[in-house]
Amino acid sequence: MVIGNLLVAQSGGPTAVVNSSLYGILKEANKFPEIGKVYGAINGIEGAINNNIIDCEDLGIDIIESLKHTPGAFLGSCRYKLSRKLGEKKIEIEKIYNCVKKNDIRYFIYIGGNDSMDTADKINKLFNETSYKLKVIGVPKTVDNDLVLTHHSPGYGSAAKFIATVVKEAGLHTASMKTSEPVTILETVGRNTGWLPASSALARKEQDEAPHMICFPEIPFISDKFLSMLEEKHKDIGGLLIVVGEGLKDERGLYLNQQADNIATDDFGHPLLGGISSFLKNIIEENLNLKTRFIKLDICQQAAMHLASARDLKDAILVGRKAVRSVIAEETGKMVILLEKKYKKGETTGLVSLNKVANKEKKVPMKWIDRDNFYVKGSILEYISPLIQGEVSVPMEKGLPKYCNRFI
Amino acid sequence: MVIGNLLVAQSGGPTAVVNSSLYGILKEANKFPEIGKVYGAINGIEGAINNNIIDCEDLGIDIIESLKHTPGAFLGSCRYKLSRKLGEKKIEIEKIYNCVKKNDIRYFIYIGGNDSMDTADKINKLFNETSYKLKVIGVPKTVDNDLVLTHHSPGYGSAAKFIATVVKEAGLHTASMKTSEPVTILETVGRNTGWLPASSALARKEQDEAPHMICFPEIPFISDKFLSMLEEKHKDIGGLLIVVGEGLKDERGLYLNQQADNIATDDFGHPLLGGISSFLKNIIEENLNLKTRFIKLDICQQAAMHLASARDLKDAILVGRKAVRSVIAEETGKMVILLEKKYKKGETTGLVSLNKVANKEKKVPMKWIDRDNFYVKGSILEYISPLIQGEVSVPMEKGLPKYCNRFI
Repeated sequence: MVIGNLLVAQSGGPTAVVNSSLYGILKEANKFPEIGKVYGAINGIEGAINNNIIDCEDLGIDIIESLKHTPGAFLGSCRYKLSRKLGEKKIEIEKIYNCVKKNDIRYFIYIGGNDSMDTADKINKLFNETSYKLKVIGVPKTVDNDLVLTHHSPGYGSAAKFIATVVKEAGLHTASMKTSEPVTILETVGRNTGWLPASSALARKEQDEAPHMICFPEIPFISDKFLSMLEEKHKDIGGLLIVVGEGLKDERGLYLNQQADNIATDDFGHPLLGGISSFLKNIIEENLNLKTRFIKLDICQQAAMHLASARDLKDAILVGRKAVRSVIAEETGKMVILLEKKYKKGETTGLVSLNKVANKEKKVPMKWIDRDNFYVKGSILEYISPLIQGEVSVPMEKGLPKYCNRFI
Repeated sequence: MVIGNLLVAQSGGPTAVVNSSLYGILKEANKFPEIGKVYGAINGIEGAINNNIIDCEDLGIDIIESLKHTPGAFLGSCRYKLSRKLGEKKIEIEKIYNCVKKNDIRYFIYIGGNDSMDTADKINKLFNETSYKLKVIGVPKTVDNDLVLTHHSPGYGSAAKFIATVVKEAGLHTASMKTSEPVTILETVGRNTGWLPASSALARKEQDEAPHMICFPEIPFISDKFLSMLEEKHKDIGGLLIVVGEGLKDERGLYLNQQADNIATDDFGHPLLGGISSFLKNIIEENLNLKTRFIKLDICQQAAMHLASARDLKDAILVGRKAVRSVIAEETGKMVILLEKKYKKGETTGLVSLNKVANKEKKVPMKWIDRDNFYVKGSILEYISPLIQGEVSVPMEKGLPKYCNRFI
């Protein structure tokens, strides 16, 4: 009855719930006699290239249960881009092929974002050209929420919940320091998309509460407009908390902090951003003489398991389970998506072709950005709010969350 | 039976539990018929100078209860330094005197850190020179834990708990990204003291877990030594999380980021720090070619009510209550301290003269810093660990903490 083994890997920046997808996969795989062993590739596709894989059965029940409340990528992750150079490409392909064949892998599930879906797509095409039958399914994961076609991405809800909480807290702090340190900038990740900055608007229940302004990467940043609104709001309100996406660009399409720094890039050629808030701090202090602090959450917002969203965690398990059912149903070259509209009717997931998702980027639609007021508009909060609902109970030990750590 | 009114004010950077001290004061004041009204000065001593005060009775029971789980400084805070210029000083003194007299204030409680204790000391001396009887007591508050003579400062435990949690989470994240983004720097506040960086060591249960290195402001920073240990640890471990205090100095005693930036100062002449991590990121990437991210928690760590320490909250209430009992007992010119050794025997608080605390700075003792290994040593964790124990249940509303906001 066994058809072959399943290989699972995690790729790209981890989220608070990326291990919950792994949990869902492991639990669902148990149900199907077609699946022999479940292997985990260490550090994403690099594990396949280097034949560095583990047998997940060895993990034991306690560790598998702890995946639901452990941040980071349990199996290790990567930002490895498959080579385009002919010689290197051939070697890589051979290595992946050998690992798959050697370990009798017939199912491959890749958990990741838009770059990782490109990798999964390439691997699917690669095996389609051979006689070796491998089913490849992608599982969505990103705090950025920038994957297309899925209603939302697992990982986003937890990051959004953390950011909105921090904005509530830092907003009160800044309000109380208005006579000495009146401006705080909070910088989120999210590259060219403003889904995370947008989530901060959940913190504002009443007019004049934080966040007082939101800068979206989708909108060219015009210093004069920004400074004049900030000055006006400072006069009206006092202490201001401003949320900015890391990937702000000017009207020419250049990253705002590009002039000051040489921006390094990752293997996919994406600029390694971060630093926009010190740029903004400088222009605020120079032009308006308002002391400005800044918060750069960076990977905190991707790892904040202690404040994860229960809904997000549930979604992450769901897409993992769906991926297993999909490979068993002989689906391949597809990514699992979440279908919000049908959420209450029971049909919660679907599939789309990997090539329709790979390397695409879902931006915040213009109907949801109030560019004149540096804020959100329309029904965007009705979209985001359900994704942050519910708290996850993390076991505590001596005053700190108890997580499992495979890396030591 | 009423002797006069009580004025309370909050000063300096807020902590997660500074409103719990206010809560303790309000609750304890209710017990004493000597106290007529309790007034709150808006924005610390600025409220007294501008006669901007509120009657705390108007707050109502719901708001007073919510102080125990609301970050920021409820009354507003300040970093105002009393003037040394003769003309200005005279005007300020007159304004404070008038506010106190006009509102029949006989008790003044100032919640703050070492700068604020200097302000309280000055006010006490000022009134000692007059025939107007005013009792002045200081209540300790600082995330930095740098107040002398008290065993520890309310505010520190909650910040320490948040930092250690973030280090656990970001440490797992970084471990899983070791092949692409192997180094993360986490920058804490704390000026010239390393109590907050030290608290991150609570996160490490096993050898090779995060934090992998801690840089203390107490120890001159030597780049070569830092880089060679980091290189070695990277080879051994892979993904590294490094915790640094904002106030790192070189061997000449200059702030590390001083050469690059002109550092602004606050009203007390303290440099407004922050930015050390981008400096370190640059030297790591230039010298070791290891991609480095950084987290700058800034005021997050001072406002993280959602992860406050129950013990810290209890201490904050305790010092508030003690301050009220002290003014009633005709004590003046003193600050409340916490007595750890006697904690279990019931005698938990004491008093010391304000002038012994004002402007002093308690550094981490050398016996607790392992300078060769960029880590803590000795019994420091036995000192810190009790302060982060216990969780505070914050009411949630639509997926976010419910805080009260006086500023809108």
